[in-house]
Amino acid sequence: MTAATTPDLLALDRAAQDLLFRAARTANTFTDEPVTDAEVAAIHDLIRYGPTAYNGQPLRVLLLRSAAARARLLPHLSSSNRAKTASAPLVAVLAADVDFHERLPELYPHRPQARDWLADRATRVEQARFNATVQIGYLLVGVRAAGLAVGPMAGFDAAGVTREFFPDGRHEALLVLNVGRPGPGAWRERLPRLGTEDVVRTL
Amino acid sequence: MTAATTPDLLALDRAAQDLLFRAARTANTFTDEPVTDAEVAAIHDLIRYGPTAYNGQPLRVLLLRSAAARARLLPHLSSSNRAKTASAPLVAVLAADVDFHERLPELYPHRPQARDWLADRATRVEQARFNATVQIGYLLVGVRAAGLAVGPMAGFDAAGVTREFFPDGRHEALLVLNVGRPGPGAWRERLPRLGTEDVVRTL
Repeated sequence: MTAATTPDLLALDRAAQDLLFRAARTANTFTDEPVTDAEVAAIHDLIRYGPTAYNGQPLRVLLLRSAAARARLLPHLSSSNRAKTASAPLVAVLAADVDFHERLPELYPHRPQARDWLADRATRVEQARFNATVQIGYLLVGVRAAGLAVGPMAGFDAAGVTREFFPDGRHEALLVLNVGRPGPGAWRERLPRLGTEDVVRTL
Repeated sequence: MTAATTPDLLALDRAAQDLLFRAARTANTFTDEPVTDAEVAAIHDLIRYGPTAYNGQPLRVLLLRSAAARARLLPHLSSSNRAKTASAPLVAVLAADVDFHERLPELYPHRPQARDWLADRATRVEQARFNATVQIGYLLVGVRAAGLAVGPMAGFDAAGVTREFFPDGRHEALLVLNVGRPGPGAWRERLPRLGTEDVVRTL
């Protein structure tokens, strides 16, 4: 199979393939054009249809819009990530709601007892983290669907961010995300990707 | 903001929004039309461009095509998932490669020392699981981009599947996925989704 024919095997049109994956790139600089609450709501309205176990939807998004809120985040980032986060038009902390099960009688109404299956906190933390992380995959695609660029940052102190922003003890921070429109010199060279033969095996 | 205007705030065209999220549904039955290796390769060729930390791409996909391989999986599934998995045209076990760091000198060439930052296995397992799970989000979107339906199944014994299919000790099973074209009665009623006000907060 050649690179020219592969996109044509997909039902998704080529422009959408490019927007979401093939031409999309992690941005390292941003313009100062704001990302509006309406854009954030439109992204959530799209990606909330992605599947999660028990339809639990444990992902929570904390937007750090005030200067004071952003200043509280910076000390928890690795030093190489501070400058770009300080200048991104929107910074979001993505977290898992460990008590997502409380909403299951409403979200999974045909099995209201699912809430009780998740009475054990350790089980629930694992499920919340896993499903919120799958939803992070949907969200990164969704930000690009809005014509915006993302800069996901794993280089941060997750326990510190959890303590700083979620003192309620019911959330765990998973990822920090910069969002905006790419600025000058936003792109690094595209890094190599694994081939299908490296990733997919058959039994 | 009304449901009519939200989709128009996105750069992604409405047909693609429907294909990937709004009209897409978890399938509970499938036709017997096969899912080809070329389709699987086309899906991977799309979603491999999604971002991962250190460009590490730890997701691995094991396709269970033979009757013998599928028979080995069934005892590890919750009883309610066995019938639909036995009849799906394609069943995949999604796993994290715990030793993904071995490829970093090639995948992240500007920081070849990244491999050494991940020398500690516990750190690596956490990173491999997190990033492979984000990639599962991309993959579920990618299967739909191919015009196929997915049935993700969290109801399985992950430790048992890891032992059964990855005796090398370098992989951890994360999710079992049924893939195919929807059969008769494939859809349950759409379950409710959280509103943006439940998910997004601002500081």
